[in-house]
Amino acid sequence: MNIAQNILAELDPILNAKSLAIIGISTREQGSGSSFLGALREFGFEGTLYAVNPRGMEIPGFRVYPNVRDIPDQVDLALIMVPASAVPTVVEDCLAKGVKGVEIFSSGFSETGEEDGRRLEAELSRIARKGIRIIGPNCFGIYCSANKLTFLAGLDFPQKRGPVAFISQSGGHSVEFGLWAKAYDIGLSKVISYGNGCDLNELDFLEYLAQDPETKIVGAYLEGTKDGRRLVDTVGRISKVKPVIIWKAGLTKLGARVVKSHTGALGGEERIWEGFFRQSGAIRARNLNEMTDFITAFLYLPGDTGRRISVVGGGGGMGVVAADACSQAGLEIPTFDDEIQQRLRPLLPAAGTSVRNPVDFGGPMMPPPVYEKILEIVASTDDVDVIVVTHLVHFMYNARRFQGFSLSAIDELLSIPLRIKERFGKPVVVVLPMVQPDVEALGEEEERRRIQSYYLSAGIPVYPSLERAVKGISSLIQYYSEAGRG
Amino acid sequence: MNIAQNILAELDPILNAKSLAIIGISTREQGSGSSFLGALREFGFEGTLYAVNPRGMEIPGFRVYPNVRDIPDQVDLALIMVPASAVPTVVEDCLAKGVKGVEIFSSGFSETGEEDGRRLEAELSRIARKGIRIIGPNCFGIYCSANKLTFLAGLDFPQKRGPVAFISQSGGHSVEFGLWAKAYDIGLSKVISYGNGCDLNELDFLEYLAQDPETKIVGAYLEGTKDGRRLVDTVGRISKVKPVIIWKAGLTKLGARVVKSHTGALGGEERIWEGFFRQSGAIRARNLNEMTDFITAFLYLPGDTGRRISVVGGGGGMGVVAADACSQAGLEIPTFDDEIQQRLRPLLPAAGTSVRNPVDFGGPMMPPPVYEKILEIVASTDDVDVIVVTHLVHFMYNARRFQGFSLSAIDELLSIPLRIKERFGKPVVVVLPMVQPDVEALGEEEERRRIQSYYLSAGIPVYPSLERAVKGISSLIQYYSEAGRG
Repeated sequence: MNIAQNILAELDPILNAKSLAIIGISTREQGSGSSFLGALREFGFEGTLYAVNPRGMEIPGFRVYPNVRDIPDQVDLALIMVPASAVPTVVEDCLAKGVKGVEIFSSGFSETGEEDGRRLEAELSRIARKGIRIIGPNCFGIYCSANKLTFLAGLDFPQKRGPVAFISQSGGHSVEFGLWAKAYDIGLSKVISYGNGCDLNELDFLEYLAQDPETKIVGAYLEGTKDGRRLVDTVGRISKVKPVIIWKAGLTKLGARVVKSHTGALGGEERIWEGFFRQSGAIRARNLNEMTDFITAFLYLPGDTGRRISVVGGGGGMGVVAADACSQAGLEIPTFDDEIQQRLRPLLPAAGTSVRNPVDFGGPMMPPPVYEKILEIVASTDDVDVIVVTHLVHFMYNARRFQGFSLSAIDELLSIPLRIKERFGKPVVVVLPMVQPDVEALGEEEERRRIQSYYLSAGIPVYPSLERAVKGISSLIQYYSEAGRG
Repeated sequence: MNIAQNILAELDPILNAKSLAIIGISTREQGSGSSFLGALREFGFEGTLYAVNPRGMEIPGFRVYPNVRDIPDQVDLALIMVPASAVPTVVEDCLAKGVKGVEIFSSGFSETGEEDGRRLEAELSRIARKGIRIIGPNCFGIYCSANKLTFLAGLDFPQKRGPVAFISQSGGHSVEFGLWAKAYDIGLSKVISYGNGCDLNELDFLEYLAQDPETKIVGAYLEGTKDGRRLVDTVGRISKVKPVIIWKAGLTKLGARVVKSHTGALGGEERIWEGFFRQSGAIRARNLNEMTDFITAFLYLPGDTGRRISVVGGGGGMGVVAADACSQAGLEIPTFDDEIQQRLRPLLPAAGTSVRNPVDFGGPMMPPPVYEKILEIVASTDDVDVIVVTHLVHFMYNARRFQGFSLSAIDELLSIPLRIKERFGKPVVVVLPMVQPDVEALGEEEERRRIQSYYLSAGIPVYPSLERAVKGISSLIQYYSEAGRG
């Protein structure tokens, strides 16, 4: 059987499961089983839910079966949370019942580094080959936005459907990614935490997501792989049609050692992975922030975005930071020609400002009509492909208090980048730095988050720093500048 | 005159000014002059304030003098905010009056890149040599915690006195630094924004801070220097007695171009500055976050802190991130020996956890008595110099909702690292990551900030990520591991 070609037909019914059995539901109040059942219901899972416990406990509103084989109806997916030693028997039961796939939350397999765990995991792989697909063990399983299937402690997960998929060897990172996606209004298709990957692993899931019509952007957290050659091939093929952003952890020797005890995978060395990124065309993220930043760029900005940036905002140090960041990210900040400079000059205060690009107001606030004129001039400049506007929300509040700007002037100013984007058809990116993260400044942070949400819902990407914004833009440009993409 | 030897005697009366004249107070409501006067009063400046305006305007509660020379009393420091062309005359007036120093907020000097500006600035340098010291032009001036002298729009500035000084060519960064210092409870001695530095420049201020008994840790944001050789010598000398942390911006070609239009300094190339850091022993920060992170380490951790780290917390991906970060920062995460592992093993759930170091609970919460036992074992291990505990506040909230942990259990758990630090006398560092920065999660962020403040006020440093924590610790170890320091 050629897995690659059948993977969509095989995995779709599992990920979009219409009936679900939770095996190993706990009788203890603090157990994750019963709360997980509740979370699935509250989250709005649209299929049928069954609970399985050999001691036949009672859960209000559910019938609990002693064995998965006792369930009278078809079961698409089983969630297994029994102790490791009991897992193989339970999976055999699922196989007998005709369950298509199982996710195994339980740990205690190859990641322990012990003989017992390795043996148990080998047994699982053997059972899988008889005709059932396994996600895990030692994982959080599947989140699928289409049927509102969420995973462990997933009540907080976002509900917004969209084109972004994420796979992760780490359950923790998959949950955290979901929360970042929520904050940056990133719509998700699937999130898959696959842990040790004893049967289905990164290769299968990447292949699946390549074929999944709902998924347009693929993110992955990898600690290692069991088949580097196939990973290069697979990612290389996918990269030609969809961007694949990979955060590879455990790059250092020390990291690789910890990887081994986390998911049992073999973490490779830095130079091997450098080769991987070069050959496969995958986009390399160094942490979860970069993962979110890059995905944001792919989600919000057009593929033909150019590399000539204009940065517009207030505060002199900002200009130097912007220039350093653009330069490091391989982007350009073209100096405006004399004519543009002369048109901008009378709009800005004489002192402490710059009209060369970055356009620096010297302070956080401008009268809105003047601000609009400046952005009009910048947007109509042929040399500029992307306009990055920075709003120092914290200091705007200050300006309101000290310079007498009204709240409505701030609102008016904030709305201008939206109009500019519409009128000139050029990408606009907004930077909203956070400063002073203490309790006293929580009001400013609330306002900053409201403004972030305002721009995101208008289709404008938001970053918390200039450095992160230009790195995000750069990841997009780098991907599309390589031949045969998109 | 040897500036270096007299700098303390010369600058102390200026920075600790007992009488202040604000020259160029504006009649317009939105002008920065009148609001600045108000801000100084509200901030609690402890000396006498005079206002100067040639048109003799009225400000309730102040006598406004037409010229600084008309003030009947001694003036230690004058704050000048008249248009650039009028500045030299005003400084001459100050010289005639016997004012010791002036800070010139006005811009329009060498940073414009134009002949007029350069000429005006050269004139200021000439006047300074007649016997008055100039800070600026194109700057925000001096903040001094001792006499509550704050600078432009400085009402939000922290009031806490302490051993940290910061100098900055950029006014914006100096304000932002103040706000970060507030959030991380960093007590300040002086913050100086010196802009173009036409008279007093980074060399003078560094020399001053080296001799200032109140200052123990020096931070600097530099865009360039006019005397690289002297900067190496000066910083090299200071580094032997106090840590000097420098963020040099404008390192890239593009950045250097923007530096020129920002403060008129010549930004050097990357390799020149690499040599500078190697020779001078200055600690290199790459942005304002690193500046704050490194200062936090120097402020909260003892100089003899060792490099063997134990990371204790919940969530598997955390362990790999910790290991990668430590390895990159040159720190060690020693694997615990069998005896320690065997003592830890029964305390942790069997599944999804690790006792090797990092100690990984698999989840964000533990019963507090178990958590305390784990930290006791870790703290009593000879192999461990620093304990880094991570609290995923966001997920603790989840645990409360889904696993039935009470608020008081969370409080109890949070208090344990304090007791461990006291009982074992080993440095404890807390990591409080922020996730999901949207409006919906503002409650979690408030709690995170409260917890941050709780630890900081107990003398425990807090970082928003593991990467930043280990880089902070590393900066401290690197400084003290070089000979003849501290």
